[in-house]
Amino acid sequence: MIESLLPSFLRHENISRVTADGVCITDRRRLPFEHVEVLCRDYHESAEAIRSMVTQGGGPLEAALNTVLFTYRKDRESLDDAVRLLSEARPTNTTMRRELEGVMRRYASGDEMEDIIPSVFSHYDELYDRLSDIGEGVIEDGDGILTTCFPEHTFMLSVKKAVLRGKRVEVFVPETRPYLQGAHLTEPCLREMGIPCFLITDGMGAHFMREGRIRKYMTASDRALSDRTVVNKTGTLANAIAAHYYGIPYYAFSVSPDRERSCDDIIIEYRDGSSIKSIAGARTAAEEAEALYPCFDIIRPELVTGIITEGGII
Amino acid sequence: MIESLLPSFLRHENISRVTADGVCITDRRRLPFEHVEVLCRDYHESAEAIRSMVTQGGGPLEAALNTVLFTYRKDRESLDDAVRLLSEARPTNTTMRRELEGVMRRYASGDEMEDIIPSVFSHYDELYDRLSDIGEGVIEDGDGILTTCFPEHTFMLSVKKAVLRGKRVEVFVPETRPYLQGAHLTEPCLREMGIPCFLITDGMGAHFMREGRIRKYMTASDRALSDRTVVNKTGTLANAIAAHYYGIPYYAFSVSPDRERSCDDIIIEYRDGSSIKSIAGARTAAEEAEALYPCFDIIRPELVTGIITEGGII
Repeated sequence: MIESLLPSFLRHENISRVTADGVCITDRRRLPFEHVEVLCRDYHESAEAIRSMVTQGGGPLEAALNTVLFTYRKDRESLDDAVRLLSEARPTNTTMRRELEGVMRRYASGDEMEDIIPSVFSHYDELYDRLSDIGEGVIEDGDGILTTCFPEHTFMLSVKKAVLRGKRVEVFVPETRPYLQGAHLTEPCLREMGIPCFLITDGMGAHFMREGRIRKYMTASDRALSDRTVVNKTGTLANAIAAHYYGIPYYAFSVSPDRERSCDDIIIEYRDGSSIKSIAGARTAAEEAEALYPCFDIIRPELVTGIITEGGII
Repeated sequence: MIESLLPSFLRHENISRVTADGVCITDRRRLPFEHVEVLCRDYHESAEAIRSMVTQGGGPLEAALNTVLFTYRKDRESLDDAVRLLSEARPTNTTMRRELEGVMRRYASGDEMEDIIPSVFSHYDELYDRLSDIGEGVIEDGDGILTTCFPEHTFMLSVKKAVLRGKRVEVFVPETRPYLQGAHLTEPCLREMGIPCFLITDGMGAHFMREGRIRKYMTASDRALSDRTVVNKTGTLANAIAAHYYGIPYYAFSVSPDRERSCDDIIIEYRDGSSIKSIAGARTAAEEAEALYPCFDIIRPELVTGIITEGGII
């Protein structure tokens, strides 16, 4: 149902798919310039692909689910080890870990793995549909919307549905250094969907807020806590603070907010600073430069207008 | 006097110099990877070099002064036309326009051009020395300092003097897209000066403020008004808002604040959005993407702790 509304990059077969030889994962680092799949012949290779950012956002969950299915078919006694390794590949991605644990619980209770995995995919399709109905509801006619990174299904569907209902919107897309998900993924998806959108650099969001051209800030979230704390791609915090300053509402989508955790438990991954020193193979800084790359921002509740969840807006 | 404290990129001869054939302007777009000078054989070529961002920040003023001197020597009757063309090359740079007008007033009143131009250079050296004494004074032992873009002489000298007085500082340097002045100029200068510094992306300043690692925000300014409004490179506003949110002081240096103008007069230059779609010759976004590039942010007085000027802190 949502499949026809989605831009091509977000259709299941373009994220990850199971073949006889292994799990193919679309290499998001090479989109939009070329569509290349990484073939992972076992769960070790899948975990490594997830760790090395072949896919991001909701991609690791889909790749991990497909890897569990492939492992079930080829190497059933390694299932527990596969789930452990996949879960550890991206420590901030608690959704993936939780879903994999859920899959194993259902499997242990006797459900058929060939049914479990497709049912999880369907569950997410329904979630995306429901969350984007809520997201569509907060978008108003004439809105300029700022986002960050690649906000995937929930945001894309919200905007698409808003436009289908006759609302005029335009989206401001920060390129999102260092991996350029905004430039490589978000902008092409919006353009494919026919949504007016502008590519900007990561420091320009506040500029367009000041000019009155941005009236909503909306992102996905890597994690969200029930106290309304949001964890999302570095750069989200600066925009959330600017939105707060200008009285612009900030909504984050969360398919599965954490119920039990507190902000103190959150481990912020630091990645290799060398990503900051080159872009697309071109050197952008001196080899000797010391660069820091904290992947995620923690955004405290007072900066968050609402978290859009299955159960409504928190 | 300040020459020995400055990093090499900021020494006069490495910014621009007059030769028998024309004015050589160091191409800042190619630093730090190679030192290349653009030879401008007349003021038309100088104006074009300034317009096309061969040099930036305080560079256009030095290049323009040298061009006036060269024009005086070779093509004296074109001086008025040269000053007009150079002034128009960068409309936001009111310092350059004002200084060129001052030069022509002194020349009209009978001063010798061969004396006027060196005296303007000396005046700026003294200004940088004085402003950096004040800047040094606001830096405290243990400070993490965030900057934006390439804050040149005043900031570099302030930090250098602070370190010479035994203060421990570290500087966080946003790469500053699209031209990467932070990665290409600020970071190498600080490193050459022996100042601990970290390269980050433009969206990360707030992250390190939240972590308590940044305790000052200090930038140059493309313009500053006497009401404490600052105009500076796009990205400055977002950091100033975040600093305000975390109670971190923001100081901007201004060698010549505007006395008479109000914020409404400020024209924000928009440059070609294609700069946002590539980096160092590598394509970072789809050709079809629509990109926006407003060069400057306007930062309102309530976000500015102080403007560091010749006469003290406004």
